[in-house]
Amino acid sequence: MAAEFSTLEAFRKVLAEAPGTDQDAVQQAEERNGQLTKPPGALGRLEDMAIWYAGWRGTARPEIASPQVIVFAGNHGVTAQGVSAFPAEVTEQMVLNFQHGGAAINQLSRAAGATLDVHALSLETPTADFTHAPAMSEKEVVAALATGWNAVKADTDLLVVGEMGIGNTTSAAAIAHALYGGAADDWVGRGTGVDDAGLANKARVVREGVALHEGADALNVLRCLGGRELAAMAGAIGRARYLRIPVILDGFICSAAAATLAEAVPGALDHAIAGHASAEAAHGAVLDRLGKEPLLSLNMRLGEASGGAVAINVLKAAVACHSGMATFAEAGVSDV
Amino acid sequence: MAAEFSTLEAFRKVLAEAPGTDQDAVQQAEERNGQLTKPPGALGRLEDMAIWYAGWRGTARPEIASPQVIVFAGNHGVTAQGVSAFPAEVTEQMVLNFQHGGAAINQLSRAAGATLDVHALSLETPTADFTHAPAMSEKEVVAALATGWNAVKADTDLLVVGEMGIGNTTSAAAIAHALYGGAADDWVGRGTGVDDAGLANKARVVREGVALHEGADALNVLRCLGGRELAAMAGAIGRARYLRIPVILDGFICSAAAATLAEAVPGALDHAIAGHASAEAAHGAVLDRLGKEPLLSLNMRLGEASGGAVAINVLKAAVACHSGMATFAEAGVSDV
Repeated sequence: MAAEFSTLEAFRKVLAEAPGTDQDAVQQAEERNGQLTKPPGALGRLEDMAIWYAGWRGTARPEIASPQVIVFAGNHGVTAQGVSAFPAEVTEQMVLNFQHGGAAINQLSRAAGATLDVHALSLETPTADFTHAPAMSEKEVVAALATGWNAVKADTDLLVVGEMGIGNTTSAAAIAHALYGGAADDWVGRGTGVDDAGLANKARVVREGVALHEGADALNVLRCLGGRELAAMAGAIGRARYLRIPVILDGFICSAAAATLAEAVPGALDHAIAGHASAEAAHGAVLDRLGKEPLLSLNMRLGEASGGAVAINVLKAAVACHSGMATFAEAGVSDV
Repeated sequence: MAAEFSTLEAFRKVLAEAPGTDQDAVQQAEERNGQLTKPPGALGRLEDMAIWYAGWRGTARPEIASPQVIVFAGNHGVTAQGVSAFPAEVTEQMVLNFQHGGAAINQLSRAAGATLDVHALSLETPTADFTHAPAMSEKEVVAALATGWNAVKADTDLLVVGEMGIGNTTSAAAIAHALYGGAADDWVGRGTGVDDAGLANKARVVREGVALHEGADALNVLRCLGGRELAAMAGAIGRARYLRIPVILDGFICSAAAATLAEAVPGALDHAIAGHASAEAAHGAVLDRLGKEPLLSLNMRLGEASGGAVAINVLKAAVACHSGMATFAEAGVSDV
């Protein structure tokens, strides 16, 4: 199917009109949770997650049967500024690795019982170097959003999106700096492993890029400072909202892409939880702005949807308890 | 098979003579980890876990095919002191719930691909009230240790043990206080949900019990202040050490039982990681003494092996990455 938008403004409008959680299902799920054979609150965060999931799926007793992981890949003109420890051709090499089943996300998707789809977005045409020009034209960013939008399967019941793109922690840092202010240094980190000089260089690049595109609204921040894979993640997360499919956010880059949606449309990420706290320095600050507490803290910083994919297992466990446990009455257990 | 011990001292000796990790496998796993298609360290704690697991299994490329969860149940004479929000008959009711598949641990074991075994230990004969007498005789505690020892299947490749026993957070608090000192208040928490008066009462009970059995060595602390299900967990964890089966510790009660092993034999828990940080107040302090950083922090406080069972999924993800990923050379990806 074609995406329901052909401009950034049309995308924003579709997002703004997307349905919310089902309050009846939330209430019924809360009632069910209170009757299950455990002391009140003893499953901690698993209980909150299950109720949240039930609301978005519109049923008090949901199941997770078809989780989908999607990795989007893109190349970045800003790599010309020497912002990454790895050469740009690694993006394409890693896409082949995904396709051959050799990457971390292949193992993690299988371990979580999720399908994995990989979309390489015009790798032969990197975005423009954002220190000189907008990374993408409106036509380009809308095409990338649509790729993400169309990549989400309608029968998916849980979505995790991730990315591969040499140079994209720089792009994510620029987005965060543009959206949230502060200083460029607040938002840059070591990515795949740059040294101190590399870190200073990343801060310079972010500072210059943000200054050049000052005044852009949130979706134009995505256009001017983002990359195709970031826009595709945003498009997929938007589609999930449109279809009421819960989303687990991955790390820093995914969260920065998602943040453009939350800034463009308040509540646009209500269907999303934070899968993990990345070791990339500024991820925590982005999650704070999004008001999301990460589920896992495993010092991961790989991208590829890897942290989100690990978190699928925890959400599945939460929903399995909620929907599978007996009530006090069913089990003949004395309640307090 | 019969357990290899008939006294506490014989159990301690078997534990002291158990084999350690395979250093060659650790080294080979570290070398493999350095060649996988990811930036060095980018999988964070997953990498450490996979290497640790490889060492205990004695192979650089292990798999987790047969995880086993065991829940032990016991009744506590100390419930006569009014230490729990639930009546003692709930222990047996919950055992039936486990057997009928209605409890949280049934769902969590299934979600983790683990078998679940439930052992009820002499529920009709609670341990003695430890404020008046030792909870168990040596014969009784050795029998409970042996139940745990014999419950571990030889082909298990990952073990999680948990418990059900109304009153057993009081028992665990008494063990921690006896092993680690401090004040009784430092070690008591709300368990299944006692109020402030209940909490003060628990502290009194713990204080009296620890004073009565002062001077007991670690395994006699388990005998005098523990319960059958705590001793069975200790026996199972000991058997896992003997068979080099890695263990994921559950919450406060499991950790307190395990702590008696670590105090009896230094290094006795080298084959164990902490699955989660329980919401039960003193769990963090016990883990600090054990030198273990919890893998998950989900505000859970159910027992039943529930937190450990959720953590199985994370360890499986770690091992799947380690053993399934391609190396840079295999994938033709440019290394830094």
